Parts: sequence; C-alpha cells; structure tokens
Amino acid sequence: MIDFKALAQTYGTPLYVYDFDKMKTQFESLKEAFRGRKSILAYAVKANSNLSVVKHFAQLGSGADCVSIGEVRRALMAGVPKYRIIFSGVGKRDDEIREAIESDILYINVESEAELGRVEMIARELGAKARISIRVNPNIDPKTHPYISTGLHDNKFGVEIVAAKRMYIQAKNSDHLDPVGIHFHIGSQLTELEPIYEAAVIVADLLRSLQAIDIELKFFDIGGGLGVRYDNETTIEPYDYAQAILSALKGIDVTIICEPGRFLTANAGYFLTKVLYEKNNGAKRFVMVDGAMNDLIRPSLYKAYHRIEALDKSGEESIADVVGPVCESGDFLAKNYPLPPMEHNDLLVIHSAGAYGFGMGSNYNTRGRSAEIAVEGANVRLIRRRENFEDVIALEREYL
Amino acid sequence: MIDFKALAQTYGTPLYVYDFDKMKTQFESLKEAFRGRKSILAYAVKANSNLSVVKHFAQLGSGADCVSIGEVRRALMAGVPKYRIIFSGVGKRDDEIREAIESDILYINVESEAELGRVEMIARELGAKARISIRVNPNIDPKTHPYISTGLHDNKFGVEIVAAKRMYIQAKNSDHLDPVGIHFHIGSQLTELEPIYEAAVIVADLLRSLQAIDIELKFFDIGGGLGVRYDNETTIEPYDYAQAILSALKGIDVTIICEPGRFLTANAGYFLTKVLYEKNNGAKRFVMVDGAMNDLIRPSLYKAYHRIEALDKSGEESIADVVGPVCESGDFLAKNYPLPPMEHNDLLVIHSAGAYGFGMGSNYNTRGRSAEIAVEGANVRLIRRRENFEDVIALEREYL
Repeated sequence: MIDFKALAQTYGTPLYVYDFDKMKTQFESLKEAFRGRKSILAYAVKANSNLSVVKHFAQLGSGADCVSIGEVRRALMAGVPKYRIIFSGVGKRDDEIREAIESDILYINVESEAELGRVEMIARELGAKARISIRVNPNIDPKTHPYISTGLHDNKFGVEIVAAKRMYIQAKNSDHLDPVGIHFHIGSQLTELEPIYEAAVIVADLLRSLQAIDIELKFFDIGGGLGVRYDNETTIEPYDYAQAILSALKGIDVTIICEPGRFLTANAGYFLTKVLYEKNNGAKRFVMVDGAMNDLIRPSLYKAYHRIEALDKSGEESIADVVGPVCESGDFLAKNYPLPPMEHNDLLVIHSAGAYGFGMGSNYNTRGRSAEIAVEGANVRLIRRRENFEDVIALEREYL
Repeated sequence: MIDFKALAQTYGTPLYVYDFDKMKTQFESLKEAFRGRKSILAYAVKANSNLSVVKHFAQLGSGADCVSIGEVRRALMAGVPKYRIIFSGVGKRDDEIREAIESDILYINVESEAELGRVEMIARELGAKARISIRVNPNIDPKTHPYISTGLHDNKFGVEIVAAKRMYIQAKNSDHLDPVGIHFHIGSQLTELEPIYEAAVIVADLLRSLQAIDIELKFFDIGGGLGVRYDNETTIEPYDYAQAILSALKGIDVTIICEPGRFLTANAGYFLTKVLYEKNNGAKRFVMVDGAMNDLIRPSLYKAYHRIEALDKSGEESIADVVGPVCESGDFLAKNYPLPPMEHNDLLVIHSAGAYGFGMGSNYNTRGRSAEIAVEGANVRLIRRRENFEDVIALEREYL
C-alpha cells in the first residue's frame, strides 16, 4: 500500500506516483506468456518516457520501441542495449534517420514508400546498410477510440500489403537496405482478441509469400496495444494474446517482438491532487483541485475515464465534476463522478495515470509540470523534479 | 510580407512566427473603440504567454489578465505595471493568493464563496486588505465550443447573481477585503454580440443594486472572448462591441476593463512546418509534416480549423490530411484539406496560430518545443530558443 498522504506531504501536489513493482509484475506476466519462443518485449517509451521508468524496464531485460530520435536517446541513456531498440513513427526527419543508422539500433520501422527512399539515400551517404522493417496496415478495425486506432486505411500509419511487398523487393535489391522485420500495430487500448488475431494472420501470410521469393525476415513485430482496465473493460489475458499470435505463426521461425506501453505502466501510475475548493453553481457541484488538463489531458482529449479515490473520506456521495484551475471548461479530470463531501486540502488519487499522463503534460497557463516519484518496495524516490517558474521561462527570458 | 522561407532557413522548423505589428494594430483598434471612456485593456496572458509578447503589449499600455501566479510573474517581469494586473482563475492555491496580495496587483477575481473565505483569511494573516472583484456567472449561452464556453451554470466559472450579492456584502463588512470590481466572461471565440450585451445588462443591474446598498465598485470587467476569423466566421466589430457594453452601462461611472487574448494574437501568429513525405493509403492522401499535436493541439483538442498555405506551390489541388509524426491518429493539423502536390522540404504555413498554440505545447513523444520568432517591421528576432534533447530531460537526468 502506497502512503499517498505522506508522499503529498513530502513532495507536494499535483504529483505523479509510479509503482515500480507493479510495472515489473506486468512486464513479467507478458514475458511469461511468450516463454519458450524467441521474443523481445520492447517497451513503448511514449507511454511513459521518464528516464528512470525506461531504465527500470531495461533492467528487466526490455528493449525499447521509440517514435522519435529523442526516445532512442532516452533508451540508450537508460541502458537499453542498442540491439533491442526499434525506431518507428510516420514522420521521421532526415537527421533522425541518420542518427538511428549511426546508432546501429536493431532496425528502423519504415512507414511509407517515400520514407524507404529517404532511408536508402541516407544509408548510401553514410556508406551503411540500414536494417529495416516495414509497417503493414492490415486494414482491421481494432474497435477502440478513433484517435488511437491505427490499422485502417483511413489512418496515417503503415502501408498496404501490396505496397509492402513491392518495398521489400526494393529493399532486398538495395545495397543499402537490409529488410529484417515486418511490423503491424492496429491500435491502442485493445480489448478484443479477434482483430489482433486477424491482423496477425494477414501479416503472417505476407511473411510466407516473402519467404517464397527468398526474402527471409527474422522479426515479427506485433506492435503493442494491449488494453488495460480503466473502469470495467474486459481485457485480454497475456496468455491468450500470445497464443493467438503463435497460432497465426504456425510453421514460421521468427523472433516475436511485442511493444507494450500502456499495459506496463497505466495502472502502475497515480496522479495525486489536492482539493482547493468545493463549489455549487445552482444544481451543479464542482470539486476544484490543484491538478489540471496541463497535467493530465486524457479526460479532455479522449473523454477518458479515470477512477478517483477520495483519500480517508467518508460521508454521503453525490455527483460532482472534478475540475482544475485552467481557464477552460474543457479542463476537467472527471465529469459526474460520485464523491463524498470534500474539504480544502483533502487528497484525490486519480488512478491509471501511469501511461500518457505526465508525458502529454504542458505548461499551459504557465503551470509548471508535476514532480514524478518512483515507489519500489519500501523505497521512494524522486525521478523528476517539479518545474518551477524559472524552469518554465528559462528559454525565453534571455530574449526579453 | 513575412519571408517564411528565409525564417525556416535561419531558424529551422517547426517554428512559431509572430507579427508584432499586427498585434499592435489589433490592440489599437480595440483601444480606439473604448476611446473617451475610462478603460483598461488587460491582455489575457494565457493566449500567448511568451515574455516578449507580454512586453510588447505592456509597451502599448496594456494591463494583464492572469490565471496563475506564474502569469502574474510573467506580467511583472515584462513590465506591466502592478496596478493594471488582475489575477483570475477558478482554482487559486493559497500560496498564489498570498503572493498576489503581497504583489499589490489591481485586484483578485474571486470565483467562489469558498475562495472568498481563503482570500480573506490570507489577507488577515498578512495584515492586509485584499482588493477583489467577483466573477458573476450570468447564465448566458455564448454559442461557442463547449470547452471554451464559460458563462452557463453548468460551467465551473463564477458565481450566481444571488451568491455574488451575498459575497459583496460579506466583503464590504470585512476588514480584510475591499470589493472594487465586478467581472463576467461568458466564453471565448464569441462571434455574436447579443449574448455579450445580455450578460452586460444582467451584470450592470447587479452593479446598480449594489450601489443602492452603498457598495461602490470602480471596475466593470467584461472579460474577453472576442472571436476572430479562422475560416469564414462572422466576427464582431470592436466599435459595436464597445457600444453594446456602453449602452448596458448607461448612467454608471466605472472604468471598463476588457481582457482580450485571442483577438490580439491569434491571426498575428503562424506555425511553420516542413513536409517530410507524401503518402497514399488506398484512396486516402496524407501529407506528413514535421509539426505535430505536441506543437499545436487545437485541431485535435477542439477540432479547430486553421487555414493552411502551401508556400510557392502550384498544381492541381486534392484533398489531404495534414498529419504530424506523433504516434496517434489524433495527431493531425488538418483533415480533408485541399493542397497541391507536395514534396520533401516544402513549407506549409498554418495560419491563426498566435493564440493557444505554443502555450499548449508539450514534449509528447520526446519532441522538443519549437522556437518562437517575433517580426516587427524589418526586424526579426528570436524570442524563445528551440528546445533540444538536453532541455527535455534536464529535470530527470540527475535522478537516473
């Protein structure tokens, strides 16, 4: 049990708190599901990119799925071996591609024909042979939020099967490209197994047809996307997930690469915020807290639900909006949430805040970003210092 | 004419560019509309809080409407006189209230009864008398986006008329509160005059009824919210706006305080981004650029429209999604936008990006925030340096 009250006392609020033990349990449950098969779990750094979080997974044997050169640098700095680092993303700049090749990471996940051309050109300039994978868009509806659904033709991600095949042939024939993997990722926060299985079957078929023309790929990258329970979602068991993938891969000898993000961190994270005021406007009740959309934008951006716990409070619950100090009606952490009567300085714990929380934070309304804390066994430590006013204006003050 | 190409060359992309002359024109047009009346224009810092932008308005004689103590500090640092600074916001922390009182700013805009109690308590501790205004919620539908509509009882902002009256009496009877103003703000990006007029009439009535019980307020704070043209919106003329307010105030001698933000900066700002790739997924065309939702979140968060200009390009236009490198389908700058064929390194100018652009920016996907540039006459200067990787990890590196 994490003593949130003591943490709020010591580190102040708003505060992000991560349970490193829970992250470890999640990692190991997924690792276990793929036991006996060649596999790499490559942590999707974007879910929670704090260097200490990445290091924690690195120490558990994780690789890293990165979507910018900044994330690649984080992974290297946190101790992820370069041969377990993948660079994905739909919009890689030339300088990013160059640095990725020079860093000798496992491979670059290519997302378009135009990008394949740039990678080849840059590899030629460097006199290198770039290891690549191609992200295939299997046109499967993942049945998740449109903003995090990625495997339909309507999405910007990946290339169609026919284009992928053409690109593999081009890569095979190039002196500067080495096609080593195939990748798909149909969306995030997936709660149904069927679409994942269908996508795996489609991509495994492509793999087989590439084998038939002597293009032998070593890595079958199934992306991430395993859903977690924010409210009462049914979720996919790691074992069933692994079995679905393995059954699609019958008779194929490849290393499976899985890129979990949310699955590893979401429910291991808490956002701790303090009550400033209660307020009733006519029939409507508001609990104003010191955390806001600049700290946790998921409720505003995705209408995401987060469970809220009123620490050490009792009393009859009534419906309230939990809102922050930012000057927008869109600044809320919850709408119509049942809460007991709250007083100044009471604490609310916003659950499931370990993924896409701090990392999407901004300085909107000149609010410094929260501190981040790691809890591991009895050990508690700061892993990112709270931003103060001087931090926020640092890059513009000299030009005043 | 701003030479965007030269700016991209010198400062790189993505890049925020602000036309300081245009900001000045906007400021003066609004100032002119209230000419002959005691009035203060208090720039709403949250719209674009860059210190040099705030200083620019300060030099034109502007006050500052601030929604955090960080914004108050920005205003003071940028040279706004303390007697033209207002501190608003629904969730003020105790330390913010204390610093605001000690800074001797014009007044604190109180948004709830509970907050009035905190302000009084803190003023008592300081042996001070805190100047306050009360934000009244006139329950008027502003007919704008729900996230930026603020004047309905459903919103977290302000207090109802009856509660406001009770609070003014409490303040009048307190040794530590000095009620000097009344405030309302019904929403942002307003394009219809009628709701503003109706709200002003309601609040002016309250002002009169307070006068009748010897509570004499000096400031009538009409908030901000004047809409701007992103696409083809009809907008409100400053003159008509002023006349509507003045007609509601007949026979009342007060200083009008107006808090424009978007009106002053939105159309004076441009977000400059470079094309990385073109891509066709079946029937769908994508233009991938180096700017993303972490730079400009308005399209994702509000489904906001921004006009886009393809610099020096011609050719037959076709519909495309303009998308960034961030790994979310929600990362787009435009959907179904007509654009000519684009090539690697071509430039797009995203218009109307001067308000709620940079200030809502994040480091999501470990992307450093853009540089910001001011253009004034022939003079071009950096007003915020581009964030590099070291900046992004600075506060967590030492804990690794």
